[in-house]
Amino acid sequence: MHAYRTHTCGALRASDAGQPARLSGWVHSKRDHGGLLFIDLRDHYGLTQCVFAAGTPAFATVDRLRPESVITVTGAVVRREGVTVNPRLPTGEVELQAADVVVQSAADVLPMQVAGDEKYPDEIRLKYRFIDLRREKMQRNIILRAGVIASIRRRMIEAGFTEFQTPILTASSPEGARDFLVPARLHPGKFYALPQAPQQFKQLIMVAGFDRYFQIAPCFRDEASRADRSPGEFYQLDFEMSYVTQEDVFNTIEPVIAGVFEEFADGRAVTKPPFPRIPYDTAMLDYGSDKPDLRNPLKITDVTAHFAGSGFGLFAKIAASGGIVRAIPAPGTAGSPRSFFDKLNEWAREQGAGGLGYIQFDAEGPKGPIARNLEPARAEAIRAACGLQAGDSVFFAAGKKDEAPKFAGAVRTKLGQDLGLIKPGEFRFCWITDFPMYELNEETGQIDFSHNPFSMPQGELEALNTQDPLTIKAYQYDIVCNGVELSSGAIRNHRPDVMIRAFEIAGYTAADVEARFGGMLNAFRYGAPPHGGSAPGIDRIVMLLADEPNIREVILFPLNQQGEDLMMGAPAEVPPARLKELSLKLDLPPLAKKA
Amino acid sequence: MHAYRTHTCGALRASDAGQPARLSGWVHSKRDHGGLLFIDLRDHYGLTQCVFAAGTPAFATVDRLRPESVITVTGAVVRREGVTVNPRLPTGEVELQAADVVVQSAADVLPMQVAGDEKYPDEIRLKYRFIDLRREKMQRNIILRAGVIASIRRRMIEAGFTEFQTPILTASSPEGARDFLVPARLHPGKFYALPQAPQQFKQLIMVAGFDRYFQIAPCFRDEASRADRSPGEFYQLDFEMSYVTQEDVFNTIEPVIAGVFEEFADGRAVTKPPFPRIPYDTAMLDYGSDKPDLRNPLKITDVTAHFAGSGFGLFAKIAASGGIVRAIPAPGTAGSPRSFFDKLNEWAREQGAGGLGYIQFDAEGPKGPIARNLEPARAEAIRAACGLQAGDSVFFAAGKKDEAPKFAGAVRTKLGQDLGLIKPGEFRFCWITDFPMYELNEETGQIDFSHNPFSMPQGELEALNTQDPLTIKAYQYDIVCNGVELSSGAIRNHRPDVMIRAFEIAGYTAADVEARFGGMLNAFRYGAPPHGGSAPGIDRIVMLLADEPNIREVILFPLNQQGEDLMMGAPAEVPPARLKELSLKLDLPPLAKKA
Repeated sequence: MHAYRTHTCGALRASDAGQPARLSGWVHSKRDHGGLLFIDLRDHYGLTQCVFAAGTPAFATVDRLRPESVITVTGAVVRREGVTVNPRLPTGEVELQAADVVVQSAADVLPMQVAGDEKYPDEIRLKYRFIDLRREKMQRNIILRAGVIASIRRRMIEAGFTEFQTPILTASSPEGARDFLVPARLHPGKFYALPQAPQQFKQLIMVAGFDRYFQIAPCFRDEASRADRSPGEFYQLDFEMSYVTQEDVFNTIEPVIAGVFEEFADGRAVTKPPFPRIPYDTAMLDYGSDKPDLRNPLKITDVTAHFAGSGFGLFAKIAASGGIVRAIPAPGTAGSPRSFFDKLNEWAREQGAGGLGYIQFDAEGPKGPIARNLEPARAEAIRAACGLQAGDSVFFAAGKKDEAPKFAGAVRTKLGQDLGLIKPGEFRFCWITDFPMYELNEETGQIDFSHNPFSMPQGELEALNTQDPLTIKAYQYDIVCNGVELSSGAIRNHRPDVMIRAFEIAGYTAADVEARFGGMLNAFRYGAPPHGGSAPGIDRIVMLLADEPNIREVILFPLNQQGEDLMMGAPAEVPPARLKELSLKLDLPPLAKKA
Repeated sequence: MHAYRTHTCGALRASDAGQPARLSGWVHSKRDHGGLLFIDLRDHYGLTQCVFAAGTPAFATVDRLRPESVITVTGAVVRREGVTVNPRLPTGEVELQAADVVVQSAADVLPMQVAGDEKYPDEIRLKYRFIDLRREKMQRNIILRAGVIASIRRRMIEAGFTEFQTPILTASSPEGARDFLVPARLHPGKFYALPQAPQQFKQLIMVAGFDRYFQIAPCFRDEASRADRSPGEFYQLDFEMSYVTQEDVFNTIEPVIAGVFEEFADGRAVTKPPFPRIPYDTAMLDYGSDKPDLRNPLKITDVTAHFAGSGFGLFAKIAASGGIVRAIPAPGTAGSPRSFFDKLNEWAREQGAGGLGYIQFDAEGPKGPIARNLEPARAEAIRAACGLQAGDSVFFAAGKKDEAPKFAGAVRTKLGQDLGLIKPGEFRFCWITDFPMYELNEETGQIDFSHNPFSMPQGELEALNTQDPLTIKAYQYDIVCNGVELSSGAIRNHRPDVMIRAFEIAGYTAADVEARFGGMLNAFRYGAPPHGGSAPGIDRIVMLLADEPNIREVILFPLNQQGEDLMMGAPAEVPPARLKELSLKLDLPPLAKKA
């Protein structure tokens, strides 16, 4: 018989009755029923009930064990009878009658329980992560994560992609977030950087002639943590393709993403490819966001023209001064009490808006403070434009051109939530396309890149030379699910001449570009294919599928919000000799020196 | 028609003749045949010949292009006739008659060629890696690497393992090689370390109840580079299993390793599981090495007893003073010229040995300088012990107990190579088992751990309490292929009491152990399963399969031997503000300051 187990704790069935068996696992729970001690023995695969008879040496051994001790139980598989069958357990038709037990590891008093649903503070959970991870939800989440990643890999390989590992000790990124640095011992005064993303490497892989690359890539950003961003490291499905248009990228990756979501959706609906393509301008108009939650059925309408020159002075003035007014429908709320509207007005003020005007449409027509001043024909035109019926209301987000659309989006989300319009149990995908290449920096009055300076401008050199830069779109796109941006991607600019001109518009000289991005530019001078890709975030995909609002729930050993590993004790001080070896000295701020 | 291609450059066949097609790729080679220009157009998938007729605009465009420019060619697929068919190319039955060409990227004068077999210095190859990688061998090696890794993943998942990602920003390892450090901006004076291996995390994953873990794990060591060790980072197939004996580990991983090797062996023979298990003591006796190359048929014999008290004074003295004499057969060399033996003697002196004695056995009996002084019966006994026949010779490695076995191993390898006995085209695997737990530190006279202090000693607490420590073996094992150690592994010590006693023998107090390894020890106090695993090196597996002696040939973007990335410019200086932010100051050595 095997030293530890003939079966896992999830394996025994009625058909095994009468056979000898040996199981190993954790003491999940103990129940003393007079002359019998029942132990639910747990391993990764399941639970099996083991029965110890009073008076036996095995009974005496397990009787004094704490939960979470690890034991090996040898005995006979016995069929349970009648009411003792547990239909909720796959092994519930049998139990193991213990003849012998070996204690592999006796547990001390636990800082947290594994069985049951008690909540524990993050500090306890992360310090004792090896216990926290034994809990049912964490086992499920981590296995889900592994399954999602394995499924992505399988599907990417089937789609003709090859996985490559790009360097982790590399050069500082020329742009973006803050890098983590690694002192180079053999090069005093110099540092490696951990990659914020393998962006340059994946483009070089295309230049090197590998047609379709992907990687479940570890990425590193020295940024503050958020609910959906773990401090330190995160993973993305990094991919890139050569000789493709934007539509090729979409058509290739949609079946992978949709396939993975369907595989793990567990009955939840998933958008069927092709996913809707929504130009950035349309998204900002219809949803007030470049990451719209399409589960929310509300659509925004521009009603500036209806208020221009109208009797409602506030909005008329906004329209006259180049501002805009957006209307967000609130179906079935015309009869809501005054408090409903007042609360939303209060919420709007908390968001920094002046307030939240509205019109109620009931059987007799428009009502409310705005309606009192607005010409009835105009109110009717707004009703028609927004597709409203009697019984509906409409709210207005009015203000400056660059503020009102976003606020309208916030109102749309708020109404969607408050009115219970956001359908649960759905994964609604879309692409947001045609992002503007440039934007006006209001502070400096200069033209900046609005997103990635390495994306290909639509119209290429001709557009850069002839169009108003603020009207130029880029072949840049986001994939969005349920209001969560999974990734940003682009068809890249692979032409040195176009790149230099694109940077010139944003105020960089050719020499600046050579100095800062010479590596990439140089590579593009020796034969570069047109290429593009994207990099959906793995952690966010798993969060969506696991329905977890916090990223730490889907990561095995996350750092805490302060970027600490409480279990391993990282970060930590290092001996002075190690710093000397790295040609470094501490330069602590005064407060830290005192501590 | 697609903007870039209707087919890849490896796709067109005779059956496509008469169809229009569009291809994109790199200008691999150009041949001007009077009125026609032939271009071999290359992409990741193959080569296709494109023909441009003189006088056409397309001809004029491509005529002035340099090799490695990227073009899109549109035309008609035409069947080649007679001798113009190229049977060496899958596309060799057709060519594309170009009607139109678009230049996607015109190449500058290249620092190295892609077509052909010219050799270039490493510095050029690494600086222009994006060109180097286009060469046939590098494409093959990198795709092989990706294939090996994908195959390993598939096989591990089929074997019931789950892949998890362990942290890369973590705590400094308590032992082993030098860590790379990462300053923690939010914790002045503190540092993360990059993992030398996920050793502690994988053990914690077992403690957390995940039964079978693996990871294609990036590992980081701040060590000097070697031919088989890339500076900085490397990858290993890290795996760990719960509730297993050593034999379970072997039986589980052998089919994975053998399967991967068979998949990519391309006709080369692979050891069928079960792989030979060779105890460390036997390996040191038979092969003079704990990583024996089993393709070498030579076996070493201990002949100390035959020389003890013999007429050959030098070896008799060595035997008398506790030294040993090992015999290494050299089949078929008895008739070799004196220069053969002299050269080996010279080689032995270069290795630091006193010389390399030998006996030639020909039809008339033993010959040579040793035989002249050795009693014939003893010579005959040696011949018999070593299984030699007339025509064979035997060499002797004699010396101290801890030096002679290793030198005998070096002689065995040298003879195997010089005599052409090492069979190419074979992958010969074995396990080396039963490593000693402790060794005597000759300098201090104290007992040290000989390998991993966290391995389980055979006999556990009882052995530690009752045996001479130098006789205790560990459940520690290496997997070796063709003389290359692929990995070290062990059944781990999961019992705090056994661990504290094991360290006590090596001179550590319980308090020392708590202070240095408290994290692991603590985890083992809350229910730890028996567990074990190993971590075969991915880069070494690929080197063996690619038959490459240098690890840089199987890595996409390796650092050079000085740990520099010449392409991306890493490591690099960072602005003083970045250091300030990290609470660090440079502390440069005088020489570096001058530079």
